[in-house]
Amino acid sequence: MKIGIIGSGAVAQTLGAKLFELGHDVVLGTRDPSKLDEKKNMAGTLREWLAGVTKTGKLGGKAKVATFQEAAAHGELLINATHGQASVDALNLAAADKVGPKVLIDTANELDFSKGRPPGALASQDNCLAERIQGAFPNLKVVKTLNTIGAPVMVAPQALAGGEHTVFVSGNDTAAKAAVAELLKSFGWKDVLDLGDISSARGPEMYLAMWIRLWGATGTGMVNIKVVR
Amino acid sequence: MKIGIIGSGAVAQTLGAKLFELGHDVVLGTRDPSKLDEKKNMAGTLREWLAGVTKTGKLGGKAKVATFQEAAAHGELLINATHGQASVDALNLAAADKVGPKVLIDTANELDFSKGRPPGALASQDNCLAERIQGAFPNLKVVKTLNTIGAPVMVAPQALAGGEHTVFVSGNDTAAKAAVAELLKSFGWKDVLDLGDISSARGPEMYLAMWIRLWGATGTGMVNIKVVR
Repeated sequence: MKIGIIGSGAVAQTLGAKLFELGHDVVLGTRDPSKLDEKKNMAGTLREWLAGVTKTGKLGGKAKVATFQEAAAHGELLINATHGQASVDALNLAAADKVGPKVLIDTANELDFSKGRPPGALASQDNCLAERIQGAFPNLKVVKTLNTIGAPVMVAPQALAGGEHTVFVSGNDTAAKAAVAELLKSFGWKDVLDLGDISSARGPEMYLAMWIRLWGATGTGMVNIKVVR
Repeated sequence: MKIGIIGSGAVAQTLGAKLFELGHDVVLGTRDPSKLDEKKNMAGTLREWLAGVTKTGKLGGKAKVATFQEAAAHGELLINATHGQASVDALNLAAADKVGPKVLIDTANELDFSKGRPPGALASQDNCLAERIQGAFPNLKVVKTLNTIGAPVMVAPQALAGGEHTVFVSGNDTAAKAAVAELLKSFGWKDVLDLGDISSARGPEMYLAMWIRLWGATGTGMVNIKVVR
């Protein structure tokens, strides 16, 4: 599948590498594609990323770095992997309103590091990023997922507790959620829980405040929750 | 142990009954103790509660209904089981500032039912009930716990997934958290995770937005999370 990733940090690089490994045709969109040697927050440079992913390719995957707009035009499926505060701006730069009715996986969280650590989780009953993105880009089929775990767990759920834990999907379009669930299963996810329409993304977004404390209490980002029912 | 419960709804009645069953001396505090025949939201009347609990007592437990103030004076350990929006007011009526350095278990959540269901979870980075209670009653040793599950699961964790799931404690006083963890273990909890100081209660309070969606998605309040790490 052709996949366009909006963003180039740790989440974008991790998802992009996994999708390449699985044989997808990935364009990773960044604000300035000429800056291939800029060190990314919590991740390496994009030149290193390009060199690294091509080592893993056995299934004919493709990987390229381009602009936000090229990534959005390229993908049959889009992924928002920017910082939450930058997401709507990045999607505007990507001209995401002009790409038609594509599925957009939204993985982003709004975190406030201005008052030190642990960061504040800015989601609330009245501030849900996924709802805001869906409102700003009504052509897109937004599916919130993967925002509740760290990047290494996103693409390797079996590396934690044998994969016996849960990932969530929220969105208004049932077919879009089903397609995203398939992709998640190809990453190794066994328990994909559909929380409901896009407003249900308030749940996983506000949960970030809990995840931040779980990281603090356990001392590792290799942590998640299993929904027992 | 002498335990004073502030509140008389479903959570208060459920915790009170379990504590009685375990042999504790429970005073359940309510706004107007003369209204023994008033039907409580999601629970029966206090007259029914008194009649019901006494059937379970094999360990010498005691149960009484009294005012908020009598409950707060009675307990060596206090429990806030009011609605979150009413908690500070109820603790003021209980004269909780004049009872000395008691441990207060805070189980409350601020939920907004004014816009229909599912209710809004009002906790946010800037609105944490447990922090507000600790600030208003600096004499108390506030421990946030049990707010992340429904009342039936609080006192019978083994009824769900064999008890293989997690409950959280947050608070500034280590000894208070240890005492509360002991009480939780007497309920059957196996995994009591200390999240940190009282500010870490933002995690479980904001998590309520997720719990509300888990209830919606699974169709049952018999649902919780197991932290895998």
